[in-house]
Amino acid sequence: MSEIGIWLVGARGNIATTAMVGARAVASGVTDPTGMVTARKPCTELSLPDLDEFVFGGHDIRTGSVLESARRLSENNGTPSAATLSAVEDDLSAIDQRIRTGTALNCGTAVAEMADATPLEADRTVSEIVERIRDDYDEFRRANDLDAVVVVNVASTEPVPDDPERYDSIDAFERAVETDDRDLPASSLYAYAALAEGHPYANFTPSTGSALGGLRELAEREGVPHMGNDGKTGESLVKAALAPMFAGRNLRVRSWEGHNILGNTDGHVLEDDTNKEGKLASKGGILEGILDPPFHNRVRIDYTPSLDDWKTAWDYIHFEGFLDTEMTMQFTWEGSDSALAAPLVLDLVRLLVHADERGRAGLQRQLASFFKSPLDVDEHDLSRQFRRLSEYADKGATGEGEATTEATTD
Amino acid sequence: MSEIGIWLVGARGNIATTAMVGARAVASGVTDPTGMVTARKPCTELSLPDLDEFVFGGHDIRTGSVLESARRLSENNGTPSAATLSAVEDDLSAIDQRIRTGTALNCGTAVAEMADATPLEADRTVSEIVERIRDDYDEFRRANDLDAVVVVNVASTEPVPDDPERYDSIDAFERAVETDDRDLPASSLYAYAALAEGHPYANFTPSTGSALGGLRELAEREGVPHMGNDGKTGESLVKAALAPMFAGRNLRVRSWEGHNILGNTDGHVLEDDTNKEGKLASKGGILEGILDPPFHNRVRIDYTPSLDDWKTAWDYIHFEGFLDTEMTMQFTWEGSDSALAAPLVLDLVRLLVHADERGRAGLQRQLASFFKSPLDVDEHDLSRQFRRLSEYADKGATGEGEATTEATTD
Amino acid sequence: MSEIGIWLVGARGNIATTAMVGARAVASGVTDPTGMVTARKPCTELSLPDLDEFVFGGHDIRTGSVLESARRLSENNGTPSAATLSAVEDDLSAIDQRIRTGTALNCGTAVAEMADATPLEADRTVSEIVERIRDDYDEFRRANDLDAVVVVNVASTEPVPDDPERYDSIDAFERAVETDDRDLPASSLYAYAALAEGHPYANFTPSTGSALGGLRELAEREGVPHMGNDGKTGESLVKAALAPMFAGRNLRVRSWEGHNILGNTDGHVLEDDTNKEGKLASKGGILEGILDPPFHNRVRIDYTPSLDDWKTAWDYIHFEGFLDTEMTMQFTWEGSDSALAAPLVLDLVRLLVHADERGRAGLQRQLASFFKSPLDVDEHDLSRQFRRLSEYADKGATGEGEATTEATTD
Amino acid sequence: MSEIGIWLVGARGNIATTAMVGARAVASGVTDPTGMVTARKPCTELSLPDLDEFVFGGHDIRTGSVLESARRLSENNGTPSAATLSAVEDDLSAIDQRIRTGTALNCGTAVAEMADATPLEADRTVSEIVERIRDDYDEFRRANDLDAVVVVNVASTEPVPDDPERYDSIDAFERAVETDDRDLPASSLYAYAALAEGHPYANFTPSTGSALGGLRELAEREGVPHMGNDGKTGESLVKAALAPMFAGRNLRVRSWEGHNILGNTDGHVLEDDTNKEGKLASKGGILEGILDPPFHNRVRIDYTPSLDDWKTAWDYIHFEGFLDTEMTMQFTWEGSDSALAAPLVLDLVRLLVHADERGRAGLQRQLASFFKSPLDVDEHDLSRQFRRLSEYADKGATGEGEATTEATTD
Repeated sequence: MSEIGIWLVGARGNIATTAMVGARAVASGVTDPTGMVTARKPCTELSLPDLDEFVFGGHDIRTGSVLESARRLSENNGTPSAATLSAVEDDLSAIDQRIRTGTALNCGTAVAEMADATPLEADRTVSEIVERIRDDYDEFRRANDLDAVVVVNVASTEPVPDDPERYDSIDAFERAVETDDRDLPASSLYAYAALAEGHPYANFTPSTGSALGGLRELAEREGVPHMGNDGKTGESLVKAALAPMFAGRNLRVRSWEGHNILGNTDGHVLEDDTNKEGKLASKGGILEGILDPPFHNRVRIDYTPSLDDWKTAWDYIHFEGFLDTEMTMQFTWEGSDSALAAPLVLDLVRLLVHADERGRAGLQRQLASFFKSPLDVDEHDLSRQFRRLSEYADKGATGEGEATTEATTD
Repeated sequence: MSEIGIWLVGARGNIATTAMVGARAVASGVTDPTGMVTARKPCTELSLPDLDEFVFGGHDIRTGSVLESARRLSENNGTPSAATLSAVEDDLSAIDQRIRTGTALNCGTAVAEMADATPLEADRTVSEIVERIRDDYDEFRRANDLDAVVVVNVASTEPVPDDPERYDSIDAFERAVETDDRDLPASSLYAYAALAEGHPYANFTPSTGSALGGLRELAEREGVPHMGNDGKTGESLVKAALAPMFAGRNLRVRSWEGHNILGNTDGHVLEDDTNKEGKLASKGGILEGILDPPFHNRVRIDYTPSLDDWKTAWDYIHFEGFLDTEMTMQFTWEGSDSALAAPLVLDLVRLLVHADERGRAGLQRQLASFFKSPLDVDEHDLSRQFRRLSEYADKGATGEGEATTEATTD
Repeated sequence: MSEIGIWLVGARGNIATTAMVGARAVASGVTDPTGMVTARKPCTELSLPDLDEFVFGGHDIRTGSVLESARRLSENNGTPSAATLSAVEDDLSAIDQRIRTGTALNCGTAVAEMADATPLEADRTVSEIVERIRDDYDEFRRANDLDAVVVVNVASTEPVPDDPERYDSIDAFERAVETDDRDLPASSLYAYAALAEGHPYANFTPSTGSALGGLRELAEREGVPHMGNDGKTGESLVKAALAPMFAGRNLRVRSWEGHNILGNTDGHVLEDDTNKEGKLASKGGILEGILDPPFHNRVRIDYTPSLDDWKTAWDYIHFEGFLDTEMTMQFTWEGSDSALAAPLVLDLVRLLVHADERGRAGLQRQLASFFKSPLDVDEHDLSRQFRRLSEYADKGATGEGEATTEATTD
Repeated sequence: MSEIGIWLVGARGNIATTAMVGARAVASGVTDPTGMVTARKPCTELSLPDLDEFVFGGHDIRTGSVLESARRLSENNGTPSAATLSAVEDDLSAIDQRIRTGTALNCGTAVAEMADATPLEADRTVSEIVERIRDDYDEFRRANDLDAVVVVNVASTEPVPDDPERYDSIDAFERAVETDDRDLPASSLYAYAALAEGHPYANFTPSTGSALGGLRELAEREGVPHMGNDGKTGESLVKAALAPMFAGRNLRVRSWEGHNILGNTDGHVLEDDTNKEGKLASKGGILEGILDPPFHNRVRIDYTPSLDDWKTAWDYIHFEGFLDTEMTMQFTWEGSDSALAAPLVLDLVRLLVHADERGRAGLQRQLASFFKSPLDVDEHDLSRQFRRLSEYADKGATGEGEATTEATTD
């Protein structure tokens, strides 16, 4: 049996922990893969790695243990259940030995204050940080005799960097690393290290990650598949499903208010306006991509500690129909953030391994439905994004179209 | 300029009245065509009749006048506005001379009690009723020198007939008419008359209409396009947009509760359980066509007089995600029933005229997105239904594929 | 330390089980008494029995065990938590030996079908059933050396009896018992037995219980305090708090729609229209007691199995303000039925013991805030009902006004 | 017939306009007084001035006309209806001659930018502004031969002043006026002028108004009744009705999120954080006065232009019950801001005239239910506030307790 390594940046966070618990729980038959896109048609037609082939490792800037994180989640949020947790406790305990201290370079003070380990940037140049990350990946691969490693960013949201265009070529990026340019965001260092090592990469956050021009170029050159940004798990998912209904029926949306409250670390970090900026842009962009301007489009994200890992969104849509009739729709979404995100992380790993095995390099646009801001994809209609994945699965299942970089543009 | 006749069964009801007001208001520039699907891409690529070419007529079993209906709607519901109404009053006044008394055969006691004219069935055989309806259509066409007539059923919902299979051939249906089979539903008599006269037909209600096997056969034989059933305007529209999101993400819906309250005649008639049956089946079927069984699927429709023509729906969705996590979504939709339905009636007429001009016979499956229970279409995913319309529009715009009966199956 | 017996009719149901778990959990310090009215001012001014003085027993028509019920609740609904449950498991195990098989006379087929023990009425006259219940109470008291016993009905809702006026005197009721009148509802047999034995009684359900004229007379004669009907725990509680706001501001409610969905046994039994009747009357009456007629007042209760012990209510209020302006309010309440009801059961027992100790006989109107249909109380404004309890507490705390039957009428 | 003058600060705003329209519409029988507290028991027991005795005047810093304001409201929000508006047009036209240009001193830039008249402070000392306001009041009284004048502030919310304690005596306030202290807020200048002239005063906004120590002292000395602050019309009203339910049942509120969106001038001005500050404090204070700490209490107010004069609030309440069970309630309130506020303005005038006629001086705490932040009243439970008004009405109706300053404290 082949072994697939999943390297999670933010390994002791809620999403990472839930992904680890879930992968083990499904593999051992304690629960079923509900919530995983790849456990359902059309993706079941593809030859994808099994969950029991997954070996977990990762970076974090907090100490503690995955098991502690899982226990806290179980007690405060009910997911995983006590029964599920006890079935995977031993597996979780084994993971911490594969977690390394990471970097929080340019992650903002809200993130820095959470660190209780000494982050890599404390006493290293950027070049040394990158070297260390690459060594961590490499040691992970060798020590566990892995056939492949996929790196996924599930760390807290970083502030938006100034002028990211300055890193728009491999040369520019590498020169910045060499000259100890301390403006580089942590997420891009992890992404660079992954791509340089030939590891597929997914950015589940709105942080910069592999979106820089230089890293896109690198992925193409090295023949590595990657995709991002920002997992589409709750309110944004609903928006992507609902907004096309208004557009298709020529109902004029005048205002779409989205108000999110959440209580986990993500919520805490997003209280810092600099960290929130990227998230808001990512969430707001979905509607801009579907509805006709002009309309009022506001997204609020507020931190409500008592909700813990639960996220509640209330959206209010004021629209106009025939004969200037003003009407409204509102919805409330109440979801467990990690339970929604974690299965998608596993899906992305499985689909990136599939793409990598077939020699697909660069951005994997067929994965657009997983992201709020799919890189290089203008299509925000959820159903059309799903269709793109279906078409990929149809081709992949028959062997057609393999080993080619997708040419279709949106 | 060519003139297109729109014959509305239920001509003094809210939907018909709003369609008449709206067509005149848009034609005269008082308002814009927001809410009309054909006023937006992709349908704007097609050559469709203009709204100012429309001449209205119809059947009703109530006396009164269209203008009175419009005034009542304006005062009680705010649509149309006083300004819009005054701009079209003269046009509305002219319509009543083209409205004839219809039949309420097998429409149930709730409908019968609303009749203040003597309905056709009071002193006629079924065969005579049909003859009279055909004469009414014919007189309408001749008197107004119309190039085409489209018949649309917007009357109150009928009870579901027993054993409709007995009318599954032209012969069987016509024999029933000849032998004065008084089990035949009114909606099918109107549909038969339309198809026999060569007039395209749309059934905007869950009543039987042209769904009988014998009438489908007739439409094919006579080369007449038709489609139904039951306009998808509010809660059902949202379901068709949202349910694919749950399916696509492999989130297991355990219960979907839909609770509708409305205050218009439709709501009043649906208080009668026999009339409600077809509506509930139609609304419930959407989810069955999209989500995996088993799940709890309840639709309630209640009459709340104070809401008048407004319809409020509250839907509560209890679903399960990864690691057995139970989550919920709920939405409230508040729409003006007629303002949502009327533009679709105008859309259907335009698109049926287009199909008829290109010789397309039988069921027009490209119109599936307009209906809750699209005849002979299993696809309930709204986005995929929209795509089908787009594909039709793309072909129709280039002249490709004209004059052929669509072969694609779902 | 004195010992107080709580005899629960429906002892293995969700509410009874949760009351038992909660009493033990609070007594042992595992949790705090949040949710108990008597744990907060003004009732903390009164001298009330402590939770650790409570000894539980009861009747049921199902076999099984309280511990099994508690485990099922914990697993399916999360209340009690696994940790709380494990802290009280031994206590729960000891309770089943004090649970006796009861009667389901006139409880309807939905209840009868749940019985897996042979109910008392299978082979007994009514008189024998009553005798047996009295013996059960007596044995409970003696065997546990109890200072007092309070009987609380938390069994499933019965159908509304025909013509309850025929039991409007002690004589009439007792004659019916003697002549084996098998129209008598089970809840009234339990109530009669309690009052005849001198045990305070509370009816937490909309069933008949002690509401019959004959039983009220008996309670007065025997000097026993009692109260009912129908615990006010969720949607009805909110109605009682909100409706006075509309009244006080002279906002005219035109329609108040209440739609309840729930998944527990109560919901299952209420699927039977005969059982539902009393519940609907009880829930609907609150608004009638507060708002000016006429208004549309509909309550729906639907069974949604996936919700288990959770109850969700959506209420939609259409109201009119100044200048005929139509406005709306809607709310969604999502509560754990048993977690809301159980603490009130404990409150009622404590307050009935208090009343009994002070010689208060008959209906205890100061407890009106606990009930949807407080017997002999017309006041439905929650705040005014709370005030009545405050006034009682103020008097009780100072010793004033003891040993008198309250004379105040509403 | 006696004539009562109502002087509205912000006379061409939505609330003032709606109050004027409404007073005339009710007086002329076009509509009924639904929404007016004084049109219902217990206040109907009092001898209060009739609406047809009201003469309107006021200050504004915008030009235009009341009729234009009313037409805009009618077209954009539907209130007043076209029919009602046409019935009162002549009355409205007559009002503008009694509207004078006012001051926006320290009202913030958002308000200043709305001014299209030259506000009084442009070329006057504070002392001269006050003089001018007093002259305006006086001229209004004389020219219309009024028996009484009541001044009500319905202008946009001002920023919270720094260190308002410096004006805590009549002397300190008057010295500030004399020395041209340009930190004085406009609302307090209007209030001072009213009290000094002996005119009852109500502050329907969160601005400072008569809350300054010096002005309270002045009201007592001059024997003038006054009250404030901030009319309680929508979300806050519901909070004051609902929060006592949680408290009374010992349900522990952990988070109460309130999210308000509105589209009128008030919303626009509140986009400025300095203006918003007082409003948020006022709205937040209600819960602090009812619920036990600690709990998370956030209020958001956002400007959503398409809503015009409508205000929608979504509140989400996360609470804990028995056995640590976490539950939620949420509500959505959709109200027409002016239709809710305007009748209360008329109520306050009627009740202040009543108080004034009976010689009641100083703060009128019996009016607490009308305000979000009732001055010198700690009681925030809506029902208890209503009761206070009832008690006042009971006394006032029987003549008891008249002509005395209320001694009761909260």
